[in-house]
Amino acid sequence: MSQKTAVRHALSVTREGDFAQWYQDVIAEAEMAEESGVRGCMVIKPWGYGIWERIQTLMDAQIKAAGVENCYFPLFIPLSYFAKEAEHVEGFAKEMAVVTHHRLIGDGKGGLVPDPEAKLEEPLIVRPTSETVIGAAMARWIQSWRDLPLLTNQWANVVRWEMRTRMFLRTSEFLWQEGHTAHADRDDAMTETLRALEMYRAFAEGPLAMPVVAGEKPEHERFPGAVATYSIEAMMQDGKALQAGTSHYLGTGFAEAAGIRYQDREGQQTLCHTTSWGVSTRLIGGVIMTHGDDDGLRVPPQIAPQQIVILPMLRDTDEDAALLTYCEELRAALAKQSALGEPVRVLLDKRPGKATQKRWAWVKKGVPLILEIGGRDAAAGQVSVLRRDRLYREDGKPDFAGQAKDEFLGEAAAKLEDIQRSLFAEALAKREANIHRGIDSLDALAAFYAEDQRYPGWVELNWAKPTGAELDAVVARLKTLKLTVRNTPMDGAAASGNCIFTGRPATQRIYAARAY
Amino acid sequence: MSQKTAVRHALSVTREGDFAQWYQDVIAEAEMAEESGVRGCMVIKPWGYGIWERIQTLMDAQIKAAGVENCYFPLFIPLSYFAKEAEHVEGFAKEMAVVTHHRLIGDGKGGLVPDPEAKLEEPLIVRPTSETVIGAAMARWIQSWRDLPLLTNQWANVVRWEMRTRMFLRTSEFLWQEGHTAHADRDDAMTETLRALEMYRAFAEGPLAMPVVAGEKPEHERFPGAVATYSIEAMMQDGKALQAGTSHYLGTGFAEAAGIRYQDREGQQTLCHTTSWGVSTRLIGGVIMTHGDDDGLRVPPQIAPQQIVILPMLRDTDEDAALLTYCEELRAALAKQSALGEPVRVLLDKRPGKATQKRWAWVKKGVPLILEIGGRDAAAGQVSVLRRDRLYREDGKPDFAGQAKDEFLGEAAAKLEDIQRSLFAEALAKREANIHRGIDSLDALAAFYAEDQRYPGWVELNWAKPTGAELDAVVARLKTLKLTVRNTPMDGAAASGNCIFTGRPATQRIYAARAY
Repeated sequence: MSQKTAVRHALSVTREGDFAQWYQDVIAEAEMAEESGVRGCMVIKPWGYGIWERIQTLMDAQIKAAGVENCYFPLFIPLSYFAKEAEHVEGFAKEMAVVTHHRLIGDGKGGLVPDPEAKLEEPLIVRPTSETVIGAAMARWIQSWRDLPLLTNQWANVVRWEMRTRMFLRTSEFLWQEGHTAHADRDDAMTETLRALEMYRAFAEGPLAMPVVAGEKPEHERFPGAVATYSIEAMMQDGKALQAGTSHYLGTGFAEAAGIRYQDREGQQTLCHTTSWGVSTRLIGGVIMTHGDDDGLRVPPQIAPQQIVILPMLRDTDEDAALLTYCEELRAALAKQSALGEPVRVLLDKRPGKATQKRWAWVKKGVPLILEIGGRDAAAGQVSVLRRDRLYREDGKPDFAGQAKDEFLGEAAAKLEDIQRSLFAEALAKREANIHRGIDSLDALAAFYAEDQRYPGWVELNWAKPTGAELDAVVARLKTLKLTVRNTPMDGAAASGNCIFTGRPATQRIYAARAY
Repeated sequence: MSQKTAVRHALSVTREGDFAQWYQDVIAEAEMAEESGVRGCMVIKPWGYGIWERIQTLMDAQIKAAGVENCYFPLFIPLSYFAKEAEHVEGFAKEMAVVTHHRLIGDGKGGLVPDPEAKLEEPLIVRPTSETVIGAAMARWIQSWRDLPLLTNQWANVVRWEMRTRMFLRTSEFLWQEGHTAHADRDDAMTETLRALEMYRAFAEGPLAMPVVAGEKPEHERFPGAVATYSIEAMMQDGKALQAGTSHYLGTGFAEAAGIRYQDREGQQTLCHTTSWGVSTRLIGGVIMTHGDDDGLRVPPQIAPQQIVILPMLRDTDEDAALLTYCEELRAALAKQSALGEPVRVLLDKRPGKATQKRWAWVKKGVPLILEIGGRDAAAGQVSVLRRDRLYREDGKPDFAGQAKDEFLGEAAAKLEDIQRSLFAEALAKREANIHRGIDSLDALAAFYAEDQRYPGWVELNWAKPTGAELDAVVARLKTLKLTVRNTPMDGAAASGNCIFTGRPATQRIYAARAY
């Protein structure tokens, strides 16, 4: 995050200066989303939605490859479904949008009001998640062991009434996928839970180029009613953690509430073991805070709606025609290529406007490669290439590299692949530099976070997996430092020494961090 | 719809016997959708949702190719937005889901109720369509002529409270795309309106193999507030019309209500001309009632989630392994092929179960080609092929054709393309046989529909384009015959003779029909 003095960055607020404001500015300047005028709901604009479409396309292919079938379940869930859940789930969240009427009527003063005659007998809840309604469907669909496993997924909008919202990270309405599966036994359900977790890890570290820690959440952070909750956790550039995806093994509790039973091979009626797993538009917030810099967003090529933008430097003269022909041929040649396993996505931006202004608009959007082509380049068979991940020369000027067109065509795919790799490597190095190990007491922990560090990062701690009241005390203690336990990594180093909370011999290592 | 006596069809109800019940049976037997337990909302099951995914994929490519960009707008729209619309739109529909609370609370009796403390100051409406909220965004986004045209689309769920629902055709919640565009002038907006109409026509007659009439709706059938509404109309096998897509030229009325203005080249603030256009999951209802037969659904190959299903006739013996290897090689060879411009979608169905039972399940789902492979076929390098569009031999038995595997591989793509063409040709022939021309008086019209015809079809009538009170009288008269005006075809034959309603010289021909 060092800022070379010679550089005048495209954003007025830097990450170092005010990370929260920087985040909002990136979203605005990259034209990803904006406030909608509807409380807590955003409008996702083409560049932001294009990234979501890329995420959907790539992840949907993985979901289907795992044998999971997409369905669509109702937006509305009858209130009584939740009453059932509230009975047996302590942490049941009640902040939900409630539909009570099905008609508007004139109020006699030129306005409209809900028609009192059209009050619903039973209120409907706008789905905050679909466990209940999908559970009811599973109970209808599953008869025997032959129907198992039942693997379903849906891409949908969900609503959780949020008091404090932040675009992509926490909005009242958001878009997500929710996988819901039913299995004959614990082993099969746990295998699916961990398959989804690994799918998310590989997806984050692959297409999103976002390093994550996959691990198990401590018991107080479990999804209400789950037997085990796993997450992927990413470190943002301000050192905070972002929970970027979750996968839950639900045991038989949800199956019991919904009546999901099957006849096993011996003819016995047996409860299913269920799972659920999801990622949401929150991933886009993670991409911004992992890869963005003081010039705006940087989009990893695999999820960039456009990977290469060609900017012809039009002069409103007769020579523009030849320049445009040259650019169009370049575009067509690039579009025929493949990079990262898919056809290259390339845009020729012919819109009116100054070339420099357009360049900076694309820099802020984070398109991986920008090609500026002037009349002389066209005449000489040249291109001028700017890599978004290496924007400036030592002297603070944009690092354009002139190159013969054919040479560039030969390298374009490799360049995109290199950018994908570089963004991951850069993010991984940042994260590793900001995980602090060797803190061996509560006092040392408190002292570490009391230091005057802008972005202190995460700590790895020895941990004896306290539960119950002992865990509550740990959580309370961490809260005084504004810390939370993130997860116990699946592939974590063996524990050594004593748990800094309980003093007992440690059995695991955990990460603790400030978090979104 | 003749039924050969020798044939025992897969469905217990025929189209001829009870079309409405047949429709429900196809949906159930093809496992496309089912009632959800939530009033008016359906669960779309994998086969039905797979068809919707195919429709989305293909249409989205067309929408993008037209330069339209996808966005996402909020599910909730503040009540006041509609109050504005209600003021200036007479036909404003008020049957909408109204959110009034944002929290649930225990009722002290173990149940949950909306928390009176969490009543919204302003109720929120679950979007029935997004003109208002997108109009507000356009007003923010458009400053000058350089910003025009603004071409946006969203894929979303919408809710219109329906008293009488029918799966896919009329449900309280449905899935659709809604295009919304803003233009500098009438001509540009009208060009876009007709581009969308033509996109829908070509899409219906291409991927859906469903012949449609593209035309303009009469004024009383316009979208409330629109200057002109166009539709595509398809004839179902019961002779009724289905409006399968609409495109509206909205003039400047919506722009005025939302404040969508631009600075033109002369520096004047000018109102935009807007359009909107949409198709929905209703298309799937159209596909069922266009192509379904007494054995279930027949899916046109372009929108079939699977185009070819391979059924190995497993016998639980040692020979199964060789058979499965043979089938897997066949599957892999087919998956490498292209048909209708895309890789062939082929499934090897290895699930347990009797081969005959599985065959009929796939027949009911309407997969275009079914391959049954027994041990002897595998040994001899053969396949046994059943075309879903030509199911029976003269003797009423399934028309399986034995063929050398390599020969089939050489023909598979052509077969799928032939099925796509045949389904369209068959549907077109049915429609043409059921459009009745030459009815030249109201008495003749009444007499025609009084005849004892099960499925009387459409009539083409001379028409002088009555408006206002005159049109009201026509609508009322048609209503006594349970008829509605569908549209005036874009490419209709020139009118001759007199309008049968007004007696004046006809200027157009229209279609009238009973309709969904």
